[in-house]
Amino acid sequence: MTVDIDLKKTVDTSYKIYIDALPALTFDKKVAVVTNPTVSGLHLDYLLERLEAPAVEVITLPDGEQYKNWESIETVLGALFEARFNRSSLLIAFGGGVIGDMTGFAASIFQRGIDFIQIPTTLLSQVDASVGGKTGINNRYGKNLVGAFHQPIAVYADPHFLATLPPREFAAGVAEIVKMAVTFDADFFAWLETADLSKPEQLAEAVARSVKTKAAVVAQDEKERGLRAALNYGHTFGHVIENETNYTTYLHGETVAIGMVMANRLAVALGLMEATEAERVEQLLQRYGLPVRYAIADVDAFYEAFFLDKKSGDNSITFILPQHLGGVEMRSDIPREAVMDILRTFTEAAQ
Amino acid sequence: MTVDIDLKKTVDTSYKIYIDALPALTFDKKVAVVTNPTVSGLHLDYLLERLEAPAVEVITLPDGEQYKNWESIETVLGALFEARFNRSSLLIAFGGGVIGDMTGFAASIFQRGIDFIQIPTTLLSQVDASVGGKTGINNRYGKNLVGAFHQPIAVYADPHFLATLPPREFAAGVAEIVKMAVTFDADFFAWLETADLSKPEQLAEAVARSVKTKAAVVAQDEKERGLRAALNYGHTFGHVIENETNYTTYLHGETVAIGMVMANRLAVALGLMEATEAERVEQLLQRYGLPVRYAIADVDAFYEAFFLDKKSGDNSITFILPQHLGGVEMRSDIPREAVMDILRTFTEAAQ
Repeated sequence: MTVDIDLKKTVDTSYKIYIDALPALTFDKKVAVVTNPTVSGLHLDYLLERLEAPAVEVITLPDGEQYKNWESIETVLGALFEARFNRSSLLIAFGGGVIGDMTGFAASIFQRGIDFIQIPTTLLSQVDASVGGKTGINNRYGKNLVGAFHQPIAVYADPHFLATLPPREFAAGVAEIVKMAVTFDADFFAWLETADLSKPEQLAEAVARSVKTKAAVVAQDEKERGLRAALNYGHTFGHVIENETNYTTYLHGETVAIGMVMANRLAVALGLMEATEAERVEQLLQRYGLPVRYAIADVDAFYEAFFLDKKSGDNSITFILPQHLGGVEMRSDIPREAVMDILRTFTEAAQ
Repeated sequence: MTVDIDLKKTVDTSYKIYIDALPALTFDKKVAVVTNPTVSGLHLDYLLERLEAPAVEVITLPDGEQYKNWESIETVLGALFEARFNRSSLLIAFGGGVIGDMTGFAASIFQRGIDFIQIPTTLLSQVDASVGGKTGINNRYGKNLVGAFHQPIAVYADPHFLATLPPREFAAGVAEIVKMAVTFDADFFAWLETADLSKPEQLAEAVARSVKTKAAVVAQDEKERGLRAALNYGHTFGHVIENETNYTTYLHGETVAIGMVMANRLAVALGLMEATEAERVEQLLQRYGLPVRYAIADVDAFYEAFFLDKKSGDNSITFILPQHLGGVEMRSDIPREAVMDILRTFTEAAQ
């Protein structure tokens, strides 16, 4: 006997990203703002002045990628249960990508899923983490290995918050903007080479173009079965660097910058990209003070670490490589030796 | 500046429930069977004889609702990472509702979601837990408070497993079948009053009818915004009993049986149900040896505990009450005193 369960249906997870000064936000439900001490110290008053709800809880998590773990999720969930939040309550992620990932994950599993809003306060999270619905935490096996796809109901990217960003954090955001341009939009890349992102209008323009590009990719492939993987350009190498340095030496965007330089060198070796194009990317990254070198201590260990990364299949690694500027290729057929040759150019001795 | 993120799309989460002898299952991917020592001891060989895959991991969790917690989820996730499972790997839930809930939840968050199959081995999980995609764990605030909606790709309900069920577990499954009949199908209820579920064909018929009824409800309301809440008939009271008795005294289905009797008494008091109808439900439950009495030690504490249950809104409790036989009403407007009057009839002194 067979019973058919038919749950085919149309799901509307559309939402808007507002690149503008934060408007007044009024809700008729309990709201919890999840943030960290740094963002809270600088900007919590600014947010609370604009936020109205029957109850507002502020949940403060320790600052840093090393706290992006299950303990922090339990802190959030515990606070919600203590304050008797329910299925119609709302979370607001108020911080950078780490806060966004954890708040989104907590929202996705609290009572099997509640709504959340993102108010990203870093350039990186405004251009990258706020689009796509990826949420999650790290564990001892690697980065973002546990999580969910859970879309926010709205994103407010207010330029106000970027004024207080330390230069390194600003640059880390630029790395993701460059990533988007290199892989999907040659015109945008050329525009970036002459733009001045310290000017508010040009910065807003860059944020909007990045977000639109990413949104178009995610809309085609929400669950990352194909095209969306292209957004991991620079990340395959970058994740290994983050793991090796325990998430403490570099900001995420900085490892992406180094990772892009590594991927480009592999692309040049495979004839996908001109050496001059790779050079232009490196110069743009350096203009914003981003790191483009990393001394690999043990190339074999570095290579092995790819296989623990979740983007890997059983016996192959997919490399995301630029195809000149504005194009991208995903390759799972690259021989170990070809990759090792590139890794060896990043050892202390070679540089 | 506003950017629209448009992820409106059709999601196909349809699947089949096979009520039949387990067929040969062949996969071209890594498979992990999540089970417990009891089921494994009785039936693992039976499953493994029918299962073919490049790699089969068996993950054994301790048996019992008290282990339906985050530690068990970490055990599953850790085993998957150690065995280098990836996004295309598959989990099989092999056991009762607890194993199904935990395996489904682990599948939903491992690398942001992988496929899973259910092979329910108890009557309760065949008729109830295997339909609807609810997954989750308990925590110190209550039952199923953390989890996700994650549909299996297929369910195999093999009557073979029911032959070894202890009578109490069999009866606990009957409680959920009765629940489905009382709330949605008067004919089915009348059929159950004369049926003999110890006969395999009649049992298969009862499983199929329950599953079809639940499937129809879930298809209309996957995320439990409305109608699906009706499936919680007996559960609002039952969850409090489970909490008070630490999940150790009663099986889940047994607390549902008591919970239905409590809900019926409230329904009779409110004029929604005849006393004779409530009596027929009680007799059917007793025929299968199900408990229909519970001595509430502290009626105020019992009432307060409703508010920690996740089905509760901020200031009201929704009671699921039968409307005669075959109908159901959800009521959030019942005065505290009306409920307390019913609870008082369940104290030791009153019974």
